[in-house]
Amino acid sequence: MILNPTIETLMNHRSIRKYTDEIPSNEMIETVVKAGQQAAFAGQLGSLILSREKKSHPFGAPIYFIVCVDIHRMQKVMEKRNWKMISSDAAMLLFGVQDACYMAQNLVIAAESLGLGTCYLGFVPFMADKLIEKYKLPPKVLPLVGITIGYPAEVPPVRPRYPLDFSCFEGKYPEFSDEQIERAMKQMDEGYLAQDYYNGGKLMIKLENDREETFNGLTYSWTEHISRKWGQWLNDPEELREVLNKYGFEFLKK
Amino acid sequence: MILNPTIETLMNHRSIRKYTDEIPSNEMIETVVKAGQQAAFAGQLGSLILSREKKSHPFGAPIYFIVCVDIHRMQKVMEKRNWKMISSDAAMLLFGVQDACYMAQNLVIAAESLGLGTCYLGFVPFMADKLIEKYKLPPKVLPLVGITIGYPAEVPPVRPRYPLDFSCFEGKYPEFSDEQIERAMKQMDEGYLAQDYYNGGKLMIKLENDREETFNGLTYSWTEHISRKWGQWLNDPEELREVLNKYGFEFLKK
Repeated sequence: MILNPTIETLMNHRSIRKYTDEIPSNEMIETVVKAGQQAAFAGQLGSLILSREKKSHPFGAPIYFIVCVDIHRMQKVMEKRNWKMISSDAAMLLFGVQDACYMAQNLVIAAESLGLGTCYLGFVPFMADKLIEKYKLPPKVLPLVGITIGYPAEVPPVRPRYPLDFSCFEGKYPEFSDEQIERAMKQMDEGYLAQDYYNGGKLMIKLENDREETFNGLTYSWTEHISRKWGQWLNDPEELREVLNKYGFEFLKK
Repeated sequence: MILNPTIETLMNHRSIRKYTDEIPSNEMIETVVKAGQQAAFAGQLGSLILSREKKSHPFGAPIYFIVCVDIHRMQKVMEKRNWKMISSDAAMLLFGVQDACYMAQNLVIAAESLGLGTCYLGFVPFMADKLIEKYKLPPKVLPLVGITIGYPAEVPPVRPRYPLDFSCFEGKYPEFSDEQIERAMKQMDEGYLAQDYYNGGKLMIKLENDREETFNGLTYSWTEHISRKWGQWLNDPEELREVLNKYGFEFLKK
């Protein structure tokens, strides 16, 4: 592994969920936004909402960004050129989510390189009613993900990842052996348990439908946690369709 | 604007479409993959296909990564925990595309910090038949974006971006004034024209439906180019539905 200051920044990433009261300078904020803008883009389809209203932010972070897929702004530009957007909402989301994410990740890395802590908040899109009203979002602006930023008041360990051979496949996609899957799971589970990430089981996701609990704080770890999410949540595509429709995206209409 | 080695790397991003024959070392490749893995993730839903088959790559780049949204691998892990995925394909894509993009952007930044050049290729998903066969992709693996990597054989300028006040909005989403939109367009168009990016009009997108051409190499620039994409392409959501269905994602079914 080759190290340099940039790669050290990338390898040191951990989510920060406790912040000091110190407020990042305006110059820092401008710097991370500019670094975000400079990411590769298909159509500059990402935009940012910046909030300094600390008391309303997750974890009480001093700075909160909401990264948006912004099709509205693109339409405004196209109107000035006498064009009407005909690309489907599905296609615009496919490209727009990527533009927004590359921007988001650049912003996060820039912030971390300045000694700030960050945390992504992925359930932002599901707060449609609140966000549309609070931030006066026009149709075709999708708040994709939130990012809290501030000075860290905790130093959690870097979290485990899958083994390299479970993440990167040369030449073709492999057929996983049982051994390979189990080894990857073990690396994740033992890694999180060693860090007491689920806090002795306090962060366990509850079992639904009268399933019987067979885990405890000493055995509950990442693979069980993530399985409970995708095994219990978000099963109704109509729910996501309704959320997207609220933001003015209609591609899932029947 | 604050500068440090990481932020300089981010601000120096430009897509590289010409590469020397020099092959990045295995250690470099391992480094960029590990840096990619270390990005924030909701469920480790991103994976990478690595190809060193130079002759088949865009721009003849020595290294080509295809960044995938990998729901298949997640299902394999869940099976071992006796869970069945019930989250909808739409929801898995919403989170999976983000995981994949954060990984992709970390990988790109790590590569650039090592002096390598990169280029994103966004139309990868539309090559379904070819990619599924070539890389033996199982259902629920979506090749989202390609990344070429190698030593740069060109040094293009850093490309323009929107003004800061057209990208980041404090407190609430603004109502854009005509002046604000026109200023942003001017910054993009004059910036690209000054760099002769569209090569004196050689990269102009052709007008369809007998529209009359009113631009030439001295006037055609970014806002017209991007308007022609979203004003002429990808208008049929069924097309994207079919593409996603080929990869085993069914959320757009009627």
